[in-house]
Amino acid sequence: MSGNTFGKIFKIATWGESHGPGVGVVVEGCPAGLPLKEADMQKEIDRRRTGQSKVTTTRKERDAVRILSGVFQGKTTGTPIALWVENEDADSSKYELIKDLFRPGHADYTYLMKYGFRDYRGGGRSSARETVGRVAAGAIAKKLLARHKIKVVGYTLQIGPYRAKTFDYGEIENNIVRCPDKKIAEKMVGHIMKARKKGDSVGGIVEVVAQGVPPGLGEPVFDRLDADLAKALMSIPAVKGVEVGAGFASVAMLGSEHNDAFVMAGKKVTTRTNNAGGILGGISNGADIVARMAVKPTSSILKEQETVTVKGEKALIRVEGRHDPCVCPRAVPIAESMVALTLIDHYLRNKLSRLPK
Amino acid sequence: MSGNTFGKIFKIATWGESHGPGVGVVVEGCPAGLPLKEADMQKEIDRRRTGQSKVTTTRKERDAVRILSGVFQGKTTGTPIALWVENEDADSSKYELIKDLFRPGHADYTYLMKYGFRDYRGGGRSSARETVGRVAAGAIAKKLLARHKIKVVGYTLQIGPYRAKTFDYGEIENNIVRCPDKKIAEKMVGHIMKARKKGDSVGGIVEVVAQGVPPGLGEPVFDRLDADLAKALMSIPAVKGVEVGAGFASVAMLGSEHNDAFVMAGKKVTTRTNNAGGILGGISNGADIVARMAVKPTSSILKEQETVTVKGEKALIRVEGRHDPCVCPRAVPIAESMVALTLIDHYLRNKLSRLPK
Amino acid sequence: MSGNTFGKIFKIATWGESHGPGVGVVVEGCPAGLPLKEADMQKEIDRRRTGQSKVTTTRKERDAVRILSGVFQGKTTGTPIALWVENEDADSSKYELIKDLFRPGHADYTYLMKYGFRDYRGGGRSSARETVGRVAAGAIAKKLLARHKIKVVGYTLQIGPYRAKTFDYGEIENNIVRCPDKKIAEKMVGHIMKARKKGDSVGGIVEVVAQGVPPGLGEPVFDRLDADLAKALMSIPAVKGVEVGAGFASVAMLGSEHNDAFVMAGKKVTTRTNNAGGILGGISNGADIVARMAVKPTSSILKEQETVTVKGEKALIRVEGRHDPCVCPRAVPIAESMVALTLIDHYLRNKLSRLPK
Amino acid sequence: MSGNTFGKIFKIATWGESHGPGVGVVVEGCPAGLPLKEADMQKEIDRRRTGQSKVTTTRKERDAVRILSGVFQGKTTGTPIALWVENEDADSSKYELIKDLFRPGHADYTYLMKYGFRDYRGGGRSSARETVGRVAAGAIAKKLLARHKIKVVGYTLQIGPYRAKTFDYGEIENNIVRCPDKKIAEKMVGHIMKARKKGDSVGGIVEVVAQGVPPGLGEPVFDRLDADLAKALMSIPAVKGVEVGAGFASVAMLGSEHNDAFVMAGKKVTTRTNNAGGILGGISNGADIVARMAVKPTSSILKEQETVTVKGEKALIRVEGRHDPCVCPRAVPIAESMVALTLIDHYLRNKLSRLPK
Repeated sequence: MSGNTFGKIFKIATWGESHGPGVGVVVEGCPAGLPLKEADMQKEIDRRRTGQSKVTTTRKERDAVRILSGVFQGKTTGTPIALWVENEDADSSKYELIKDLFRPGHADYTYLMKYGFRDYRGGGRSSARETVGRVAAGAIAKKLLARHKIKVVGYTLQIGPYRAKTFDYGEIENNIVRCPDKKIAEKMVGHIMKARKKGDSVGGIVEVVAQGVPPGLGEPVFDRLDADLAKALMSIPAVKGVEVGAGFASVAMLGSEHNDAFVMAGKKVTTRTNNAGGILGGISNGADIVARMAVKPTSSILKEQETVTVKGEKALIRVEGRHDPCVCPRAVPIAESMVALTLIDHYLRNKLSRLPK
Repeated sequence: MSGNTFGKIFKIATWGESHGPGVGVVVEGCPAGLPLKEADMQKEIDRRRTGQSKVTTTRKERDAVRILSGVFQGKTTGTPIALWVENEDADSSKYELIKDLFRPGHADYTYLMKYGFRDYRGGGRSSARETVGRVAAGAIAKKLLARHKIKVVGYTLQIGPYRAKTFDYGEIENNIVRCPDKKIAEKMVGHIMKARKKGDSVGGIVEVVAQGVPPGLGEPVFDRLDADLAKALMSIPAVKGVEVGAGFASVAMLGSEHNDAFVMAGKKVTTRTNNAGGILGGISNGADIVARMAVKPTSSILKEQETVTVKGEKALIRVEGRHDPCVCPRAVPIAESMVALTLIDHYLRNKLSRLPK
Repeated sequence: MSGNTFGKIFKIATWGESHGPGVGVVVEGCPAGLPLKEADMQKEIDRRRTGQSKVTTTRKERDAVRILSGVFQGKTTGTPIALWVENEDADSSKYELIKDLFRPGHADYTYLMKYGFRDYRGGGRSSARETVGRVAAGAIAKKLLARHKIKVVGYTLQIGPYRAKTFDYGEIENNIVRCPDKKIAEKMVGHIMKARKKGDSVGGIVEVVAQGVPPGLGEPVFDRLDADLAKALMSIPAVKGVEVGAGFASVAMLGSEHNDAFVMAGKKVTTRTNNAGGILGGISNGADIVARMAVKPTSSILKEQETVTVKGEKALIRVEGRHDPCVCPRAVPIAESMVALTLIDHYLRNKLSRLPK
Repeated sequence: MSGNTFGKIFKIATWGESHGPGVGVVVEGCPAGLPLKEADMQKEIDRRRTGQSKVTTTRKERDAVRILSGVFQGKTTGTPIALWVENEDADSSKYELIKDLFRPGHADYTYLMKYGFRDYRGGGRSSARETVGRVAAGAIAKKLLARHKIKVVGYTLQIGPYRAKTFDYGEIENNIVRCPDKKIAEKMVGHIMKARKKGDSVGGIVEVVAQGVPPGLGEPVFDRLDADLAKALMSIPAVKGVEVGAGFASVAMLGSEHNDAFVMAGKKVTTRTNNAGGILGGISNGADIVARMAVKPTSSILKEQETVTVKGEKALIRVEGRHDPCVCPRAVPIAESMVALTLIDHYLRNKLSRLPK
């Protein structure tokens, strides 16, 4: 009820704070028999790790993941998989200085209003450090999906005014912004570094594509696949908008332009275009699932900002700590994870839609 | 599990098909003691009713709502409130003609793939007629919210290229597109009628504003207020995108522009701007909640479209039936309802966040 | 959250009061493709109907069930199945007399304390009339189970001191107490009639056996099959105890007596005895599931009883209305329904326990 | 969905296996502001610890609990509280010998049938070691309940034929069987030791009383307080029956005997007797909540038993390991925990039953 779980069949519960002993996740509902080892998760966790490049924060965490339960002789047992990652480089000293100030764009004020009390060290539970657990669980989801030939690929589509025009998936991990367009990637890096030098930050768009999704995933009415993807992506820190397929561009289209004509591809029904983003009536239609999320510029900036103290006095604040000038590159594995978690949950749910044979 | 319920504390379950005996909703978790009569719901249901104007479908439903349980001596008892609305003007004849064709943009193909079987009459469960139940339940949510001085207002912000510039809430119900800008409203109507004459349809944006929301609503991590709003709005038929506050416009902003400075308004903490849309870290901050949804052009169009039959043969289709050339005007009360349902649920959840006194 | 739903995959939500417009149920999660007609439910509803014999209440309800959604061309569509039964013979006049008194053994006082307000007509929501919806939903569960060769049989095992010794299932519906032992059945009837004449009531035990349950149903830890059965049966009005297999008799046994030895029956593993009641570690082992519930004597009695008024004054009360002198005979189909609902839910859940192939 | 969580508002998720790295629990929904330290949990965990006396197993675990999240400056923050206890004395060697045999009374066969694969070391997830997490979480529940003057007391009521006649709560922790009747306690110990010497085990009854519970806790229909207690207690390993108030003894009573007359105690409504066990219509009435559970004799016995191998061959088995000859003494804190968890959950849920003021 307090909002720390995601999924209905393949269900995860994350826990942990930025400056506590560590962060973790309990994965419930993973079927028995999946080969699983720590390296499966580590690979993905490393993609969201701090200190990867000049466009990310300098906090240094090894982020070594440990399996505490649910795996026996290298395979999942069907019981809860508990994973944890210790916090090693938490530095709370910077936060003592600003513990009585509300950082603009952050959850300091809202957590205080909600709980009457808050963990001011690095945002506590509101810190994006919580997403380590999501990425660890997402790695399991991806592994399950792969068995069904479903692949989830994410990348930075846009940063500031720079938007990818070519989509070479092999390029994504080759540049520090995770952009599939090599040329645009360079411009993105330049844009970020320019803002960082001024003590400022920039926003962007992350796009996630899921390939190989069979038709039939998603439930009618409220738990539509697109509705659950919207929640999944909007639950990532700093996200302010979500769209599927043509998204907001649909507004300017006519029905005759937007509707994707059904055509045959051999014996398979498919659509000529994909304005639907692979989802019709909330249910996958077999085309690629395409979702995008708008990421606001990082709230923690060195530039001086106006704010107030917990006592209601005017104040100025500079958020020192160690922060990413643009969230997108590290948000890519998080977005992929949330999409993968949504898909595996609906994949399993869909096994229940027809009469058991 | 099959996706027909919404909410965790104030929970609704809708049921019913477009061409079955009727549609309904069971509302669970409404506190005891709320004065409630059928007219409270009817007022809102009438706003989404068919046949309101030249820009809506001509299907004629009285949509008379009936309370079947949960109310005694004019007050809610704390037990489930069952509401139902009979279908009176369902005309399935048009659907016999196209029962073996997949309507582009509709859920015909995906429901068939999911269930191996589908109710082809007017889309069955995938029909927007299902939303009658949401609006009925939304009316109860609004009534509860009103007791806490929370008001939810929705309107058509944009249709095709025409976007409201002035926001006179008193104007909304005065024009048939539910736009708060009288002049733009006229242009919107013209735009819709032009498309309708060509057998085509248009898209738009609906915006919902919630005023008077206290700080503290929303849960950390997954059940953030914005994540739940995103799901709520994306679950409405025809919606392809959702944003909160600055939304996708955040992409082009710098952190120093986007962050809303905290300032005092008398003894109350508030923010100078509202790029956050009233939500920080997933929790309301006391400013207006502002959410938007992108509505695709109606899928049912008279214009001839390419498709295939259930047997995989090429075919042409014209969707005759009775359809709205633009969904926005009737989507306004639905969007308001989904926002109201989300807010009352979080309002009640938030009562549990601090130590009980 | 307010407690009116049961099940996780195959999920039911009941609604309605004893003296309102009717009672109903929404069944979510029934797979698509099951042949279903009103008669399937009616048959079971008739078994719990009032006025069946001299040992049941004289309230006369036809209890005609109507399918409002979820079925198309005689088959379930996978969407919610809404069922309702109108109240026709509600007579609230008797309740006006006692609306300011708390009936001993009833929920009058507790509902008032909980909600600050109550529907005093026949107990409102606390009335066993609510169970009509359970039996209707249970009929669907039974139909699904039957496809997998699972059969659920209930009967009155004991009334007062009289306990069945022979178990002829063909006899159950032949006598008005639903006892599988013809001779004991007669004694049970005599025992009930004797109490009724004195304006009193009696208790008993209902036993339910599920045959053909495959091994593997039930989840570890909290959602054990026996734990869910215990909840299911204890949620029936008037039930004060639940046991599985040897139940309370286990207390006097040694481990070497209680443990059921594993033996082979052809190529199948089975157990020599069934003290476990078909459940080991919360999971079915392939033997018959055997559960029992203790039913208290009906609370509504004509005999004068001490009580207090809502104002706290001493008073005497005689509960006139129309009541069953023993709940067991009509509780049999309710108990069967709750067991069937629990089993189908776990049957479907169990499809998710191993790696999807 | 896989059954490892309990509660709806105050929700716990346990994880861990008998012979893995450890066991733990994540507590979600604990309100912010509760003072909490490891010693609060340790005190209760120590009561269920192994090696306490001659009537318990000799496995030696320190069972030191560690708080990994959710507490800041000695108070709960409202976010998930992750607790873990390392396994230190796991000895898997004994299990290698019997890994291909099904232990009678255990979950070996059923886990294998369910998952196609099992952790044979000490029962893996089916081991009662899992309950460490429940007791840790139960300690938090008790602390919250204590703030509202609610106290939960458990004890061994009966072992074999010996049943407590006097109820001196101060005596409970003074004897190794946790019986409130000193004289009977001695007989119980003798009874256990006699069985142990023969390589056998005995059963018993644990009773839990909750004092100070206000009227109004529990929800109508399915989530009745008694139904949830039944599930809570039946989910404890080795439990075969549950009863509330008069329980199975109700069967032999008349309505006029069973009904608890309402009387005034000063200005408070109360009942003269407590056959209801403090619950009417599923909702607490202000009297003591009284629940009992029947505990089967421990399944692990040294005595030789018949069984079969995983290949279906006849075999004999002696379960060596280190086992309790009677589960009751260590089951007392577990039963208390499950009752406390159920009560705090309903206490919080009940805050939502009336109109928010």
